[in-house]
Amino acid sequence: MSTSETFEQRLRNRAAGIGQLLEHILADAPESDEIARPPRLLQAMRHGVLNGGKRLRPFLVIESAAIFGGSALAARRVGAALECLHCYSLVHDDLPAMDDDDLRRGQPTVHIAFDEATAILAGDGLLTLAFDIIAAPETPLADREKTQLVLALSRAAGIGGMVGGQALDLAAEKDRPGEQGIVTLQAMKTGALIRFACEAGAILSAASTEDRQRMRRFGEIIGRAFQIADDLLDLTADAATLGKAAGKDAARGKGTLVALHGKEWAEAELTRLIDEATALLAPYGDRAAILVEAAHFVAQRKN
Amino acid sequence: MSTSETFEQRLRNRAAGIGQLLEHILADAPESDEIARPPRLLQAMRHGVLNGGKRLRPFLVIESAAIFGGSALAARRVGAALECLHCYSLVHDDLPAMDDDDLRRGQPTVHIAFDEATAILAGDGLLTLAFDIIAAPETPLADREKTQLVLALSRAAGIGGMVGGQALDLAAEKDRPGEQGIVTLQAMKTGALIRFACEAGAILSAASTEDRQRMRRFGEIIGRAFQIADDLLDLTADAATLGKAAGKDAARGKGTLVALHGKEWAEAELTRLIDEATALLAPYGDRAAILVEAAHFVAQRKN
Repeated sequence: MSTSETFEQRLRNRAAGIGQLLEHILADAPESDEIARPPRLLQAMRHGVLNGGKRLRPFLVIESAAIFGGSALAARRVGAALECLHCYSLVHDDLPAMDDDDLRRGQPTVHIAFDEATAILAGDGLLTLAFDIIAAPETPLADREKTQLVLALSRAAGIGGMVGGQALDLAAEKDRPGEQGIVTLQAMKTGALIRFACEAGAILSAASTEDRQRMRRFGEIIGRAFQIADDLLDLTADAATLGKAAGKDAARGKGTLVALHGKEWAEAELTRLIDEATALLAPYGDRAAILVEAAHFVAQRKN
Repeated sequence: MSTSETFEQRLRNRAAGIGQLLEHILADAPESDEIARPPRLLQAMRHGVLNGGKRLRPFLVIESAAIFGGSALAARRVGAALECLHCYSLVHDDLPAMDDDDLRRGQPTVHIAFDEATAILAGDGLLTLAFDIIAAPETPLADREKTQLVLALSRAAGIGGMVGGQALDLAAEKDRPGEQGIVTLQAMKTGALIRFACEAGAILSAASTEDRQRMRRFGEIIGRAFQIADDLLDLTADAATLGKAAGKDAARGKGTLVALHGKEWAEAELTRLIDEATALLAPYGDRAAILVEAAHFVAQRKN
C-alpha cells in the first residue's frame, strides 16, 4: 500500500477493478463454448452483480493471495467468481418466497426490476458462472489449485455452508435457536463465504497446508465479526444508511448474539475478535498489514 | 453387455447403481468440510433427486466412458453429479414462478411436498453439490480432467446453455420463435446437458480431442432426437403415461418443431438423427454398440 493510500481508498480501488472484470465477464459476447446468451437474462445477471457493492470478499481473496505471492490476476478472477456466487445468494434471498425484499443497495431487486422467474434463473446463472470463471483457461492457475478452489467453494456455498445457513435462517423464526444454534447458522450463512475468501488466497498461491488452515481460521474469525457488526447495524442504523430495510431481523424475532447478550457485549466481542485475528496473522508481519486493517474495517463498518 | 441383458435391463441396472451412489452422497452424515447439513433441506434435496428417474444422463456418461476405457467409478460419480444438476433444474423449473407444476414423475414436486423457499434452496444446493462431487477426492480423476469437467459442465448448464435455454423458453410464449429460434432454445434447454453427458465420458477418460469432439457431436444429435421425441410424446401421450401434465406446451402455444412440421416429418427426422448418430460412432465398432442402442432408445421412447 502506498503511504498516501488509506484503507478505504484501497478497498474502493480494488472494487473498481473487480467491477471492470465482472463487466468483461458479463459482456454481450458469448464465451467460446456457449450457444447464445439470452439478452434479458444477461441483463438480469448484470443487474444482480454490477451494483456498486464494496466487493469485500474479492478484496479478501486478493489481499490474502498477496501475502503468499499468488498471481494477482488469478486472485482477481477467483474474487470475481466469489462475487458472482455471493450476488446469486442475494438475488435468491430477496425473492418473495424468501426474504421478500424490494430494495438492495438502494436499487430495485432483480425480481422487481425484471420478474420472479428471471430472478431465479439469473441466480442460477450466476452460481454456475462462478465455477466457470475458476475453471476457465483465462484463470492462470494449475489444475490442482483450480480443483481445490472448486471443492472449497462448493463446500462453502452448499448445504454444509451458505445454502444450509439460509435454510436454518428461514426456520429460525419458528425454531428460535439458542446461542449455539445462532453461531452455527451465522457461520454457515455469512461466515462460510468469508472464510472461503481468505482461504482461497492461500489455495491459489499454492501455500502450505499450515498457511491455508491459518487463513481459513482468520476468515472464520472475521466472518463472525462481520455478522456481529451486521447485527449491531441492523439494531441501530436506518434504511437510508443501509440501502435496505432496517430492523427487519429484529422485527421478525430472529435471534442474534447481539439481541441475546446486548450491545456492550457485542462491542467487547468485536474487540476480542480483532485481537484474535491480528494475532493469527502475526507470523506474516508487514505482509499482512492490509488484512489486519481489513479485520478492523469489518468489525467497525458503519454500513 | 452380457447376451442375456436387454438394453432396458442395462439402463435399469445402471439407474439403480446411480440411485445408490446418490443415496450415499445425500446421506445424513456431513462431508469433512461441511459445518452441518440441515435435515429438512437435505430431505428436500433427496426428494428432488431420489425419485426413480431413468438416469439417462448418467447412463450416457458411463457408456461413453466405457468406449475409451475410462474409470467406471469416476464415470458413476460424474454421472451422479450431472443427475444432481439435472434434478436441480427440474426443481426450479417446477416452481410457481416458472412452470408451476405440482407433479413430477407422479409425485408432488419439491415446493408442494415442502415449501417454495425450501425448493429454491434445495435446487441451489443440488447445483452446488454437482461441482462438489466432481472435485471431491473420492472422484478418482486427475486434476486436469476435473478442471475440464467443471468447465464443460458449467458452460453446458449456465447462461450459454441450459439456464439460458430456460430463459428463452419462458419468453417463447410471447416471442413465438421461428424454426431457428426453436432449434437454439432446445439445443440449450435440453440439448446442452445431454451433449455434456456424452462429452464427459471422453473427458474423464482423457480421450483425444478428436474423440471428445465426436462424442460432443453425438450428444448434440441425440439431444435433438430426445427433444423431438419429447414433443411428439407431449402431443400424443396422456398424463398417466408421462407422470406429469400432458399437452401443456401445446396449450401454452409454445412452438415445437413437431408443431411446425407435423408428426410425419418428426418421425422421419428421428430416423435421420439415429442414422447420423450411428454413423458417427462407426469408428468405435462394437465398443459403441450400447450407445447406438441408446440413440434408438432416446428417439423412440414412449415416456
